Amino acid sequence: MKKINTSPISGALELLPAEQAVFTNLKSKIAEVYHRHGFLKIETPVIDRTEILFAKAGGDTEKQVYKVVKTAEAADEADQALRFDHTVPLARYVVEHENDLTFPFKATQIGRNFRGERAQKGRYREFYQCDIDIIGRGQLANAYDAEIISTLLDAYKSFNIQAKVLCRLNNRKIVNGLLAELGLTDAAKAVFDVIDYAEKVTTDATENALKEAGLSDKMVETVLNFINIHGDKDEISAEFDKLGVKNETFNEGVKELTQTMGLLEAEGLGNSITADMKIVRGLDYYTGTVFEFCLPEYKQVGSIGGGGRYENLASNFTDQALPGTGGSIGLTRLYYVLTENNLLKSQESRALLDYCLVPISEQEFNYATELAAKLRAAGYTVDVNFQDKKLGDKLTYAAKLAKYGVVIGGDEVASGKLKVKDFATGESKDLII
Amino acid sequence: MKKINTSPISGALELLPAEQAVFTNLKSKIAEVYHRHGFLKIETPVIDRTEILFAKAGGDTEKQVYKVVKTAEAADEADQALRFDHTVPLARYVVEHENDLTFPFKATQIGRNFRGERAQKGRYREFYQCDIDIIGRGQLANAYDAEIISTLLDAYKSFNIQAKVLCRLNNRKIVNGLLAELGLTDAAKAVFDVIDYAEKVTTDATENALKEAGLSDKMVETVLNFINIHGDKDEISAEFDKLGVKNETFNEGVKELTQTMGLLEAEGLGNSITADMKIVRGLDYYTGTVFEFCLPEYKQVGSIGGGGRYENLASNFTDQALPGTGGSIGLTRLYYVLTENNLLKSQESRALLDYCLVPISEQEFNYATELAAKLRAAGYTVDVNFQDKKLGDKLTYAAKLAKYGVVIGGDEVASGKLKVKDFATGESKDLII
Repeated sequence: MKKINTSPISGALELLPAEQAVFTNLKSKIAEVYHRHGFLKIETPVIDRTEILFAKAGGDTEKQVYKVVKTAEAADEADQALRFDHTVPLARYVVEHENDLTFPFKATQIGRNFRGERAQKGRYREFYQCDIDIIGRGQLANAYDAEIISTLLDAYKSFNIQAKVLCRLNNRKIVNGLLAELGLTDAAKAVFDVIDYAEKVTTDATENALKEAGLSDKMVETVLNFINIHGDKDEISAEFDKLGVKNETFNEGVKELTQTMGLLEAEGLGNSITADMKIVRGLDYYTGTVFEFCLPEYKQVGSIGGGGRYENLASNFTDQALPGTGGSIGLTRLYYVLTENNLLKSQESRALLDYCLVPISEQEFNYATELAAKLRAAGYTVDVNFQDKKLGDKLTYAAKLAKYGVVIGGDEVASGKLKVKDFATGESKDLII
Repeated sequence: MKKINTSPISGALELLPAEQAVFTNLKSKIAEVYHRHGFLKIETPVIDRTEILFAKAGGDTEKQVYKVVKTAEAADEADQALRFDHTVPLARYVVEHENDLTFPFKATQIGRNFRGERAQKGRYREFYQCDIDIIGRGQLANAYDAEIISTLLDAYKSFNIQAKVLCRLNNRKIVNGLLAELGLTDAAKAVFDVIDYAEKVTTDATENALKEAGLSDKMVETVLNFINIHGDKDEISAEFDKLGVKNETFNEGVKELTQTMGLLEAEGLGNSITADMKIVRGLDYYTGTVFEFCLPEYKQVGSIGGGGRYENLASNFTDQALPGTGGSIGLTRLYYVLTENNLLKSQESRALLDYCLVPISEQEFNYATELAAKLRAAGYTVDVNFQDKKLGDKLTYAAKLAKYGVVIGGDEVASGKLKVKDFATGESKDLII
């Protein structure tokens, strides 16, 4: 019957209504938790000028950015493209509206971003990201890093995921301090990349890669010992003592990490966090705290969110120092991961609507719409089947969509007495409104 | 201080947090009302194939569509563009997922669409549309038109707009029937356009335009009388009798219009609707009911929403008949209209957050985060100011964002006794949680 291909573009997640309800529920919960933690919602345009989007972006990102061709009527605009994340538009927003914002500015952006990634399972070209960021003017207290992690943990907890969610955290100053102590400042970028990759390869491969980066055997040993350090505040403290590093940057990083973990423990989140020296995050712009969320029982899933501290949000747009800390849940990928692994409490048995009213003929339409209005005013979700079909067909429709069905015929209109059928149990009882 | 232009693209609505909260509140209310009326949320990709988007679009739309340039990595995809409305993607969605949907399919889409319109005040290139549609397979009862109008009226009512919202409705079959009776079937399109334009020009101009379309003086008189018909069910019925038209299409249109109005009256919406023969809607695809919402006390504002019945949603994509009825609120424009005319109950006095906690020094950070967690668990929105600033500065910050402030010093931590200050009244009292 089809005349042309009606599939959505490759790399888009297009859901059926029941699936969409699950997705929307996750999105609403994230928004609710972010707001409860004091983040203020903002929205930036999907289309932005390439001058803004490419101010900082590296080669790989640029290859994935969708450019937009101006229309005849919008020809007055400069070159444009679709945003590939929320951070660049946030930087533009904060600089543009700086005088109207209250700092520290706690912002949340929940929306779709766009990247022309290579098409593969679980990778999306249009995807929802749910970001929170806290931007200071001039300075920003270290304690805000804990607030980002606490907010994201609260969001994951609100989903009722059938698996443990763990935040693995670190502080880049610790790694930088160690590398400085070892005299490896020049090789720092290469060593960072090796650490970032260490979990994906064997220890031998990591060892070889470190040697290739120019490290001596002794240095390699130190780095390998270092990246195995993980645990709670006290455990890592003992391990750091053994390392015997006396570098100021290192000590500052340890102090910040310890404060962050202490605050999270004070909130009762001690069981959901662990320090882990393997976590360095690939992105160049992180300067202190870095963290990733994972499902420890589902290692193949990888990171389900993360973030960190950046010393300067908008150095390409302004000379004003705007230190920030932030994190993000990639909702489209998370939805894919959670449903693929069956980790959301089954919502399939849940009906999409509360009531479906079934007037038998046109004679009952007015009565049905009146009743629907009453039930809606009481907060219920209500559909009315007005179709000119057999009663059985209309009830089949009602049972597919709603928890309760109410048949309305001449007798019901005359008496005002209605029966409500619970489709799950098959039981009927009087409708009381 | 700025290095480059950080304004958003022309034609985008970028709001400050307090404005965004008002906008988001409107969007949430629309979503809630749509759901209460039994509409199921779906989301379609922002990017679609031009083959789909241009299957039906006329010349003017095509000029405004933003094309998307494939990235190096997404080179496998066909030509793509940004969706310019929700109707075309809905048609694609229904055909693609037909076997998995329950019909009549009541769908809602709330999201951004894109048109490169000429830049001017109150016109947007990125704009939110909030659509509802009911799609039947093979046939769709006329009563569903009333359901669309009732849902949209409920949405407007939920905003608490400080002005009357009126739905003006008509049925194209009435106009078509009249034109057939007058033997004007060939000139129908031209007459439609004149009627659609009649409110923007003088009666003389309309009269001349009708003459130019080839109508005799007698016909012009009939049409001018006809388009002045408006009012409730009984009023228009009396006027139609005077016209003396005996055309079947005309009668069918009158019957449908009367049923639609009767159902809306049964729901208690009689005061919010009026039949008006001047409403024909510009879009070609409407075939029966057509309607527009306006603010009668603010005529200059024009239409704030509308919709109608279309006999075939997806004739370009499938041979299956998919009759539908739908309507839309253009939220970005509506927000602009309502705020420009000061028609939303002032929300400016409303604080963005419930609480801001102000620990005096780092010593109180743990206590503050614990307290924040408790207040959040109780459903409050809570921020903590961790900055290393003077107490006065931190309280200024708190007063800008929150309804209540709580200062936490050593004494408070020791005693557990906290004072909460209401920033609006200046009063302090004990915090009880």
